[in-house]
Amino acid sequence: MSLAQSVLSGDRLALARLLTRVENDTPEGRAGLDELFPHTGGAHLVGITGAPGTGKSSLVNQLALSFRKQEKRVAIVAVDPSSPFTGGAVLGDRVRMRDLAGDAGVFIRSMATRGSLGGLAQATVGIVQVFDAAGFEVILIETVGAGQSEVDIARLAHTTLVVEAPGLGDDIQAIKAGILEIADILVVNKADRPGVDSTERALKSMLDLAHPVAKVFMHHGTPLVPPIFGVQNGGMSEGQGGWIPPIRRTVATDGSGLPELVQSIEEHAQHLRRSGDWSRRERARLEAEFELLLQQMLLARFHAAVAETELAVMLDAVQGRKLSPRAALEKLMEEER
Amino acid sequence: MSLAQSVLSGDRLALARLLTRVENDTPEGRAGLDELFPHTGGAHLVGITGAPGTGKSSLVNQLALSFRKQEKRVAIVAVDPSSPFTGGAVLGDRVRMRDLAGDAGVFIRSMATRGSLGGLAQATVGIVQVFDAAGFEVILIETVGAGQSEVDIARLAHTTLVVEAPGLGDDIQAIKAGILEIADILVVNKADRPGVDSTERALKSMLDLAHPVAKVFMHHGTPLVPPIFGVQNGGMSEGQGGWIPPIRRTVATDGSGLPELVQSIEEHAQHLRRSGDWSRRERARLEAEFELLLQQMLLARFHAAVAETELAVMLDAVQGRKLSPRAALEKLMEEER
Repeated sequence: MSLAQSVLSGDRLALARLLTRVENDTPEGRAGLDELFPHTGGAHLVGITGAPGTGKSSLVNQLALSFRKQEKRVAIVAVDPSSPFTGGAVLGDRVRMRDLAGDAGVFIRSMATRGSLGGLAQATVGIVQVFDAAGFEVILIETVGAGQSEVDIARLAHTTLVVEAPGLGDDIQAIKAGILEIADILVVNKADRPGVDSTERALKSMLDLAHPVAKVFMHHGTPLVPPIFGVQNGGMSEGQGGWIPPIRRTVATDGSGLPELVQSIEEHAQHLRRSGDWSRRERARLEAEFELLLQQMLLARFHAAVAETELAVMLDAVQGRKLSPRAALEKLMEEER
Repeated sequence: MSLAQSVLSGDRLALARLLTRVENDTPEGRAGLDELFPHTGGAHLVGITGAPGTGKSSLVNQLALSFRKQEKRVAIVAVDPSSPFTGGAVLGDRVRMRDLAGDAGVFIRSMATRGSLGGLAQATVGIVQVFDAAGFEVILIETVGAGQSEVDIARLAHTTLVVEAPGLGDDIQAIKAGILEIADILVVNKADRPGVDSTERALKSMLDLAHPVAKVFMHHGTPLVPPIFGVQNGGMSEGQGGWIPPIRRTVATDGSGLPELVQSIEEHAQHLRRSGDWSRRERARLEAEFELLLQQMLLARFHAAVAETELAVMLDAVQGRKLSPRAALEKLMEEER
C-alpha cells in the first residue's frame, strides 16, 4: 500500500509522514500529491491572517474546538513566514496541543519558511491538498504577520478572515487599508479590551469605502433591513451575488463570539456555493497554484540542464560588471535549450 | 542620448522616468538596467525592517538627514508588501517630503506590491541598481512589516537594520527570534517610552543565544574589553572576522541617538570591507537577484511559447480532478520545448 493509500484509509502516522515529505518536496511527497489530487475538493479552506498581537493563534484554536463540536474533522496549518530560521513553529505545536490534545478529529501542522519566496506558499498548497484528500472538512490556514506572503497564503482559502484587535498602534491602520480588500469576514478579537468600539468603527468606515452599499444597510454589525432584502446575519447580498464582509467581535481566551463567527464562516461557504463563487475561487486558487508550481518546475529543469560551474562563471562576469544579469541569463537560457 | 545616459549625467527627470519604467518592467526599463549595470557597485545599501508601529519611516527620514549632513547623496526606497491594493505608498511620499523637500541630494521612491510573490523584490533590485548607477552613495531600503518578503528584501542590502520599539505586544517576541538572525544592527526606536530597558534586555538575551561570544564581552551595549581585542564601539570581531550586532537606542522624532546609529552603520561598512564580507555579501546578493530574474525570464519564455487556450484546457482538467497540477504542467512543459 502506498503512503497516499494509507492516508486515504485514515492512517494518522502515514498522514504525518506524507506531510513531512510534501513539506520537504521529496520525490515521494510529489508522487503522493499526484495520487491524492483526485480526492481533493471536499474541504472548506479558511484562511486567517492579521497583524501580530491580535491573538490569531488562540482564535484558531477556538475555531477548531467549535467545528469539533459539530463533529467536523479539522486540520490547522500554521504558516510562519516571519520566522525564517528558528524553531518557533514547533514550539507553536506544543502550545496548541494543550487545548486540542488527544482529539483524533484534529490535526495540527506548523510550517516555517522554505527559504525562498514562493517556496512556503508552494509547500502550504501541498499540505492543504493532503489534508483535503484525507477527509478533513475544515482546514484552517493561519499565517503570522500581515505581509505580502501572508496575504498570498491567505488567498489560497475559500474564506479569508482578517483579525484585528483594539489598540495596536498607528501603522496598523495603513496595513488594514490593503488587507481589508481580501477579507471575507473581519474579526475584532480581544473585544473585551478598551478601544474596541473605535477599532470596529475604523474597520466599518474602511469597509464603507470598499463596499459603498454596506453603509446604507448596516449599522454596528446589525443589518438594518429584514432578510427579505438578501441580508443574512451580517453577510448580505449586494445584488450581483456580492458579499459584504461582516464584522464579528470575539474574545478568544474565553470563547465569546465564537458561535457567531462560526455561523458567519458557514454562511460565507453557503454564499459561495449559491453564487457560483465557490468554483470561481477554486479556479483562481488553482491558477495561482499552477503558476507557483510552474515556477518551481521551470527552475528545476533549468538547474538540471545548466551546470553549477557555468552559473558560477556567469556570476563572476556579473560581479565584475562585464555582463548585466539579464545578458548573462539570456546566454545561460540559450544553453539550456 | 538614451534615458540611461541622461541618468548618468545627473538628470533627475530622466531618473524618475527610468525608475517608473523599471518598476513597470517595460522593455525600455530593462534596456536601461542593462546599460546602467556596469556603473553599479558604488553604493552602500542599507536595509531597514521591523514590525509595524516601530516608527521605521521616521527613523529612515532621520537617517537620510544625517547622511545629508555628511554631504552624501541619499536615495530612499520604501517598499510596502503589505499594501497590495491601495495607494498607501504614494501617500508615504507626500508625508516624507515635508522633511526632505527641495534637497537635490535626496531622492525618494515608494513602491507597492507588483502583484506576485517575487515581483516586488525583483522591482526593488532594479530600482536600487538605478540609484546605485546614478551615484547615490547611500541607499536606504525600507520595508513595512516583518514577513518573509520584507526579510528577503532587507537581505538585498549590505547592512540590515532591524527596528524594534518598547511595548509592542507578545507576538513580537516570536518574530524577533527569526528576524534577529538577519540583523547587522538592532535599533530600539521610541527609546523615550516606558519599557525600553526590558525591550533592550530581551534583544540582548536573544543576541546572546545567537552569538554566545557577545555575552562575555558586552554589557548593556558597552564593550567590556578595550579596542585591542578587536572591539569597536559595539561592533566587535569574533575572531574569524565576525560582527556582533550592536544595539542602538533612538528617538526618531527628535533625532536622539542618530549620530551613534550612523556611526554603527559606517563601522559595519568598514567591517565588511576589511573582512572581505563586502564582496561575499555582494556575491550572495547577486546570486539572489540572479535567481529572481531567472524565475521571471523562464516564466516569460514559457508564457510566450504556450498559448493561453492550452493553459485553460489543462486548468479545466485539473479543476475536474482528471489531472494533477504537476502532471498537467509536465505536459505543457513538453509542448514548450
